Amino acid sequence: MSASPLIQPRTLKGFRDYLPETMIPRERLIDTAKRVYRSYGFSPIDTPALEYLEVLTGKGSEETDRQLYRFQDHGGREVGLRFDLTVPLARFVAQHISTLGTPFKRYHIAAVWRGENTQRGRYREFMQCDFDTIGTRSVAADIETVLVIHDLMRAIGFENFVIRINHRLVLNGLLEKLGLGDRATAILRTLDKLSKIGPEKVADEMTSAAGATAEQAVEILRLSGLTGPNDQVLQQLEPLVAGSPLGQEGVGRLAEILGGVRAAGVADQYLALDVSIARGLDYYTGAVFETFLDALPNIGSVCSGGRYDNLAGLYTKQDLPGIGASLGLDRLLAAMEELGMIGAVRTPADVLVAFFDRDRLHDYLRLAAQIRRAGLGVEVFPEAKKVGQQLKYADQRGFRVALIAGSREFQEGQCQVKDLRSAQSETCSLADGAQAVVAAVRRILAS
Amino acid sequence: MSASPLIQPRTLKGFRDYLPETMIPRERLIDTAKRVYRSYGFSPIDTPALEYLEVLTGKGSEETDRQLYRFQDHGGREVGLRFDLTVPLARFVAQHISTLGTPFKRYHIAAVWRGENTQRGRYREFMQCDFDTIGTRSVAADIETVLVIHDLMRAIGFENFVIRINHRLVLNGLLEKLGLGDRATAILRTLDKLSKIGPEKVADEMTSAAGATAEQAVEILRLSGLTGPNDQVLQQLEPLVAGSPLGQEGVGRLAEILGGVRAAGVADQYLALDVSIARGLDYYTGAVFETFLDALPNIGSVCSGGRYDNLAGLYTKQDLPGIGASLGLDRLLAAMEELGMIGAVRTPADVLVAFFDRDRLHDYLRLAAQIRRAGLGVEVFPEAKKVGQQLKYADQRGFRVALIAGSREFQEGQCQVKDLRSAQSETCSLADGAQAVVAAVRRILAS
Repeated sequence: MSASPLIQPRTLKGFRDYLPETMIPRERLIDTAKRVYRSYGFSPIDTPALEYLEVLTGKGSEETDRQLYRFQDHGGREVGLRFDLTVPLARFVAQHISTLGTPFKRYHIAAVWRGENTQRGRYREFMQCDFDTIGTRSVAADIETVLVIHDLMRAIGFENFVIRINHRLVLNGLLEKLGLGDRATAILRTLDKLSKIGPEKVADEMTSAAGATAEQAVEILRLSGLTGPNDQVLQQLEPLVAGSPLGQEGVGRLAEILGGVRAAGVADQYLALDVSIARGLDYYTGAVFETFLDALPNIGSVCSGGRYDNLAGLYTKQDLPGIGASLGLDRLLAAMEELGMIGAVRTPADVLVAFFDRDRLHDYLRLAAQIRRAGLGVEVFPEAKKVGQQLKYADQRGFRVALIAGSREFQEGQCQVKDLRSAQSETCSLADGAQAVVAAVRRILAS
Repeated sequence: MSASPLIQPRTLKGFRDYLPETMIPRERLIDTAKRVYRSYGFSPIDTPALEYLEVLTGKGSEETDRQLYRFQDHGGREVGLRFDLTVPLARFVAQHISTLGTPFKRYHIAAVWRGENTQRGRYREFMQCDFDTIGTRSVAADIETVLVIHDLMRAIGFENFVIRINHRLVLNGLLEKLGLGDRATAILRTLDKLSKIGPEKVADEMTSAAGATAEQAVEILRLSGLTGPNDQVLQQLEPLVAGSPLGQEGVGRLAEILGGVRAAGVADQYLALDVSIARGLDYYTGAVFETFLDALPNIGSVCSGGRYDNLAGLYTKQDLPGIGASLGLDRLLAAMEELGMIGAVRTPADVLVAFFDRDRLHDYLRLAAQIRRAGLGVEVFPEAKKVGQQLKYADQRGFRVALIAGSREFQEGQCQVKDLRSAQSETCSLADGAQAVVAAVRRILAS
C-alpha cells in the first residue's frame, strides 16, 4: 500500500464537508427546529434518498428533471436521488395514509441533491427542514403553521423578523374585479418578481407579456403595495374584493389567521399582511407565508410555505389537502453568522481537564466523570503534555473552562478551575464528588 | 394531470420509509447518542453522500466495491454513494487535519448505501453512528472509548450488558509463543468465526486451512476461551505471553484500560476481557471492543470498535492513529423493541387539546400556548369533530393526556384534564395562565 501513489483527498464540486465549527451551530439549529416541531405534535419521518425515477419525475419541472442525479441500480432499475422532500412526502402519504390516519403532521429534516450550476453559489447537496399538516382544510392548521414559524424564529434567537402573509384568493379576487381573472397566472408570475426587479419592470412585463393595460398594471401594483397596520390593510382590502366571492373568502381567511395567531399570544409586530406575495403559483392554493429578518431583508425569506389542495394527486385518487413550510437552514445560518449570533466554538463540551501528570490519569478520569455526572460536557486531554500546549488546544477549540491539577494539588485534594475567557483561576476542593468544582464551572458558564 | 394514470407509490427493494412509530424511538436513540458523545467533547461533522469513486474504491474490499452505488454525474465524473463513514472520515481528516489539529474527536451519524443482497435481511440504506479519536496513541483514548460505550448503553436504558475487550497483540503474542506467528492472520480469521460456527469447526478449519496442528488448535481455543473475573483472566494471561514482547504489551495495555475504566466509576460487571475477539483483522491493531446484551446475546454486538494505526494512509503521508466505535442503531432498536423498551407512540407531544366547539378556537389556541410555554408538547385537533372521534385519534397516536372544554367550561373558567391511560378526569381552573392544568398534566406524565 505504501508504494501506491496517494489518492488526492477532495470533495466533488458543489459538495462540502462540515467541520465542527460549521456543524455545531448547524446541529444546534436543527435541534431547535425539532424541539419546536415536536412541541406542536409534528412527528419525524424519513424516506429513502433513492427513489424510483418515475416517482421523482412525475411532478418535477423541466429544471428539476435536468438537475436530477439519476442512474441504473444493480438490478437495472432507473433510480434517482431525491431533489426535495415534498415529492417523497407525497409518495409516502399516498402509500401509507390508511395506516397514518389524518390529520397527519410530520417534519422531515434531510439532505436533497440537485445537479445545479454551482456558479450561482448553489450547492448540489443541501438540507431541507420541512413541516406539514396533511388531511385538513381547517384554518386552525393555517394558524398553527404561523405559530410554529414564530416560535421557531424566537427559539433560534431572533427578535426582529416579520412573517408576511397573503392568500392566493385575495389576489385572484382583485384580478377578477379588474376583469383580468383569465390572465391571473401570467400576471401573478410577473408580480412574484416584484422584490427582484422592482415595480417599473413589473409594470412593463404586465403590459407586454401578461396582457394587462397600463392602468390595470398600476392598479395591481397599488393594491399589492398596500401597507400599514394589519387591521387597516384588512379594512382596505374588504371593499376591493367586494362582489368577488373568491376574494372575499381570501380576505376572510386572512382575518381568521390574524385573529387566531393573536389569540395564541403572538404580538402583531411579527405579522404583516402583504398582498404582493405570489409564491409557488403551480402549487399553493390558499394562505402563503414568507419570513424576513429586519436586519437582513435582502437575503430573502428564511422560512416559507403555504396551503395546497392536493398533495399526492400523482400517486392516489384520495384528496389530500395540506399546509406546511420549510426553514431555510443555509440561509439562516449565513444570516446568524453575519449577525454575530454564532460563537467560534469547535467543541460541544465546555470543560477541558488538562493532563500533565502521567501518573495521575485515574484522578483525571475520576474528576471528569464527576463533572459529567452533574450534566456538564468534559474532555480529558489524552496525553501528558506541557500545560501551555494544552491551553493552546483549549483556546483553539473554544473550551470555556480548564481544570488544572498535578500531583501536589491531588495530594491536597484540590484543583484549579480556570476561566479561559477572563484567564482567572480559583482553587476548589475535590471533596464530596467535586461539588465545589461543579459549582465553580457553573458560575463561569453563567457569567 | 387528472387524466394521466396514477404512478404507483412504492419504495425501492431494500429501502424503507420510517413512519412516526419507528422514527420517534430512532430519533430519541440518536439524540441520546449525540448527548453522550458531546458530553465527552466529540464534535459533529458531516461529509457528502457522494464522493469521487477513486476515494471510495481506494480502500474497499472486493465486496464493498461490488456493492457500491456508482454512476457518472452531469460533469462526466465517476462518483459513488458512501458505503460507510470510515472511508469518508479518512478522506476528511487527510484533507483538513492541518485546520483541525489533534487530538481530533468527532462523531458522525449519517446514512450509507450498499447494494446488498436483500435476501439476507439486509437493507441497502442504513444509518451509521460512529465516534472516533484521531491523532493519539494514548491509552487515555482507549479508556475513554470504553467509557463512552458504557455511558451510551446506560443512557439508552440498558442495565445488563457486557463490553468485551481484547487486544490484538495478546493474540499475536500467544500465537508467537505457539510458534504460529507467521500464520497469525489466517488463524485469527478462523478464530473470528467462533461465535458463528462453534469451537469444533474452528478447530477443523485451523488445521485444514490455517496450518495449525490439532494440538495447537486445541491450545488456541483453550487460551481464547479463558473466562472468569477480569483480574483472574489477566493473571492467567501474564505467564502465557511471558517472553513475547508483543503479547506483554497487549496484556499491559488491557490492564491499563481496565484500571482506568474502573477509576472513572464503571462497575466491573460491565466489562469482560475476552481473548477470542479477533474482529477487523485488516484494520484494527490494538484494543478491540464488542458489546453484548445479556438478554439477547444472539443478536451479536450492538457497539463495536477498536484501535487502528493508520487511518488515512491512502490519502496522506501523515501518520494518523486513532480509536473509535460504532453504535449498531438498527440492531439496538430491534433489541429494544423485543425487550419492550419502546412504547407504541406515534406523536412526540403528550397532550391533545380536543376541539369541539367551533366558536372557541381562540380559547383552544390560547390554552395550548399556555401549556406549551410550560415546556410541554401540545397538539390542537384541527377540526371541530365529535369528542369520541377525537379521543379515538388521541388513542391511535398514543397521546397521554387530553384537555377537554366546551363553551360551558370556558364560561366557568375551567377545563377537564383527562388521563388517557386510566381514563380518569379532573376539572382544573384556567385562571393564572392555566397553571393548574399544567400541574395536573405533569402529575399524569409522572404517574
